Amino acid sequence: MTPEEFRRAGHALVEWIAQYREQLAAGHLPVQSRLKPGELIAQLPTAAPEQGEGFEAILRDLDALILPGITHWQHPRFFGYFPSGASLASVLGDMMSTGLGVIGLNWQASPALTELEQVMTDWLRDQLGLPTDFSGVIQDTASAASFLALVSARERATNYGASRAGMQDGAAPLVIYTSAQAHSSIEKAALLAGFGRQHLRSVPLDAEFRMRVDALEAAIAADRAAGLRPCAIVATTGTTATTAMDPIAAIAAIARREGLWLHVDAAMGGTAMLLPECRHLWTGVEGADSIVVNPHKWMTVAFDCTLYLVRDAEHLVRVMSTNPSYLQTPMDAQVRNYRDWGIALGRRFRALKIWVTLREQGMAAIRARLRRDLANAQWLAAQVDATPHWQRMAPVPLQTVCVRHEPAGLAGEALDAHTRRWAQAINDSGAAYVTPALVDGRWLVRVSIGIEATEAQHVEELWQTMRAAAER
Amino acid sequence: MTPEEFRRAGHALVEWIAQYREQLAAGHLPVQSRLKPGELIAQLPTAAPEQGEGFEAILRDLDALILPGITHWQHPRFFGYFPSGASLASVLGDMMSTGLGVIGLNWQASPALTELEQVMTDWLRDQLGLPTDFSGVIQDTASAASFLALVSARERATNYGASRAGMQDGAAPLVIYTSAQAHSSIEKAALLAGFGRQHLRSVPLDAEFRMRVDALEAAIAADRAAGLRPCAIVATTGTTATTAMDPIAAIAAIARREGLWLHVDAAMGGTAMLLPECRHLWTGVEGADSIVVNPHKWMTVAFDCTLYLVRDAEHLVRVMSTNPSYLQTPMDAQVRNYRDWGIALGRRFRALKIWVTLREQGMAAIRARLRRDLANAQWLAAQVDATPHWQRMAPVPLQTVCVRHEPAGLAGEALDAHTRRWAQAINDSGAAYVTPALVDGRWLVRVSIGIEATEAQHVEELWQTMRAAAER
Repeated sequence: MTPEEFRRAGHALVEWIAQYREQLAAGHLPVQSRLKPGELIAQLPTAAPEQGEGFEAILRDLDALILPGITHWQHPRFFGYFPSGASLASVLGDMMSTGLGVIGLNWQASPALTELEQVMTDWLRDQLGLPTDFSGVIQDTASAASFLALVSARERATNYGASRAGMQDGAAPLVIYTSAQAHSSIEKAALLAGFGRQHLRSVPLDAEFRMRVDALEAAIAADRAAGLRPCAIVATTGTTATTAMDPIAAIAAIARREGLWLHVDAAMGGTAMLLPECRHLWTGVEGADSIVVNPHKWMTVAFDCTLYLVRDAEHLVRVMSTNPSYLQTPMDAQVRNYRDWGIALGRRFRALKIWVTLREQGMAAIRARLRRDLANAQWLAAQVDATPHWQRMAPVPLQTVCVRHEPAGLAGEALDAHTRRWAQAINDSGAAYVTPALVDGRWLVRVSIGIEATEAQHVEELWQTMRAAAER
Repeated sequence: MTPEEFRRAGHALVEWIAQYREQLAAGHLPVQSRLKPGELIAQLPTAAPEQGEGFEAILRDLDALILPGITHWQHPRFFGYFPSGASLASVLGDMMSTGLGVIGLNWQASPALTELEQVMTDWLRDQLGLPTDFSGVIQDTASAASFLALVSARERATNYGASRAGMQDGAAPLVIYTSAQAHSSIEKAALLAGFGRQHLRSVPLDAEFRMRVDALEAAIAADRAAGLRPCAIVATTGTTATTAMDPIAAIAAIARREGLWLHVDAAMGGTAMLLPECRHLWTGVEGADSIVVNPHKWMTVAFDCTLYLVRDAEHLVRVMSTNPSYLQTPMDAQVRNYRDWGIALGRRFRALKIWVTLREQGMAAIRARLRRDLANAQWLAAQVDATPHWQRMAPVPLQTVCVRHEPAGLAGEALDAHTRRWAQAINDSGAAYVTPALVDGRWLVRVSIGIEATEAQHVEELWQTMRAAAER
């Protein structure tokens, strides 16, 4: 494709994306895809084409084949999983990155890629109210960041012995502590890094689904008594199911006293800390060794874009560094080489999408939008609280409301079946999208608010939809 | 940013990208950025803006601030590292992905994302001439894919014991074998997965920088005799420094006999296998347990896009699976859930950029381009061979030519200094970009051909530039 052909095709695609977002805003598309398993596969050729085709044919197939297979995450009535904003400003930032087509293997391979990343991660750290002794890097996902945190913890506990000599050193197993509501990525990280799933402790919760500090202390003491080696605590600021807030200050005090690594998984909740009035929710966070926040969630920077902050960057680099000759340059001593801050050697120019998003929107507008979403969540919580047979199942510190409809006489598995039925009825209808989740052994429905296009009216419509689906 | 504002800004950015690529084609920009360390940082505000700005200002800064900090990987005289093609067709495919803004957490979260990925990885597998018992998934980078391969090997060797009970099980250390010219990502993967750098064996090379099979056998035997547990072999199809081709068939026979996992790192060389005449270079590859090929290199699919192929997908899923309630859907038994095929839970719709690239270009044109690059490399090798005081330092099976200029009387460190000096002189001039590398303890210069815009004329110009820089 020549630049001239790209002009024509690119303008057509810009128009397509603009129309797509207008369609979403108008609410015309069913939120959840109605595709049946295998339906797209059956429509595609079984082999790559021998001859090239015009872009027009591809764009037609984007409408005819791909669009019916899309569950619309940017739809104003998408309340599933978590809000993964892909603001149109961030779409442009990402387009710049792909259009430039550069790879950050080292500083020299495109100095702007490294330096803008350094400045953007500083901007975000400061906007989150974190101290300047944290340094940042962009990772693809929180899964990768939390994995790096556990590897870093492992190496501090073994004085770099695990990365050098391996974990099969005859020493006692290392143990990780996290809440029973921690994200599945923590379990995955523990198994990948060689701790083993068995050495991940699920610390019991209080009534508000927060990690119990007394239970944490007891678990650490029991492991020490059994000859195991406590290594790290992963605390969560905004758990996946209910956005519960683990008590960071108390956990940080334990980590300090016990000499454990503290990783704060604020993948979801971190964005709220752009609001000074929310920062009490992670009081003590400055005691963390590492923090992860996802700008690709509620902050509207298009996926994938994870902010990983560490207090001791030198430690991270010492763990991760490999230094083959073909990557060495005369500048190495004066610059950051982010390849030693993560798994991947090659790196996209992801900082551009943060840069365009923050500049185009401005922090004042971003904060206003977050406050809108918090107010919408409080409104929905209040309706649930005020309506017979509806139960709010968890506090609402952020933008997620966990609910159940409990008709008289329904309990246990029958209630679970009812809950899953009405959630699926909503999703199948296409009118809105919500996520059922298992909390405390019983199913509830999560309403996760915060898509850029979601206004109060859409939450009101959802509430009507929920009542209709559950009460009919 | 509203869809209407996006239209205006998006059209302006399409025009910007088209002009950027035209400027590159015209050869007007210096290939290597001339930015000094810290120069961009000094020009950027120290805090995020409070108020939003118009996109025009951002686009002006893209020119004024970012562009001078870019080393132009799509420049026709970029011969550094490896060709990382970002064809304009793939730029459009990536734009579709970001514009849709969907996340593949599970099949239902956007069925088309999963199903197109399944079909695209099948298309590529077939085009590479691989048997249909391999199943594919898209990863961000080969670093991640090779890491998954080593974790999979670890779990097969321990009957899933390491992921369950951790590696600190009192058993003997597991050992990985790779060539002394393997990519640095293998060392990183070994340390991340808990093997330890010490348990990665660098098997000696033959005169053509290929892994020596007798040395591999000896290393395995020595480790068994010492009570260690050989676990996996990583063979390379196209090493980073010289694109050497490890003898896969012989290595596969050893892996089979010894019960070891065989991972083939064809990140660079794999693309050549789109050409039937190149497939003899990885004869025996069907004996691999896992293979990694990077479409984001020579295949011109914009970074990041790595194809990871496994023979036993069930094993991978069994190792990686975590199954929290909030990700379960009624479809799970009938579909692929790619979250269990990699580190990240959230996944971009990367298959779109493969789809658009292959359809827009067609396989015939892609193969023709690869053959052009192979011929250009052979031409350069012939010039080097025919010119006094120039030495070709390795065979040229693909598109990389390793050279040294050896003036009479220069050897050892003085020759190294000369080599690095003329390479840096070329890079600093902006006329072209090459990568020096240390092979066999001495520096040489790699010329890596294969950017989409690179024609025979650019390689001829490079040769003149090299002679002028080295011989003056």
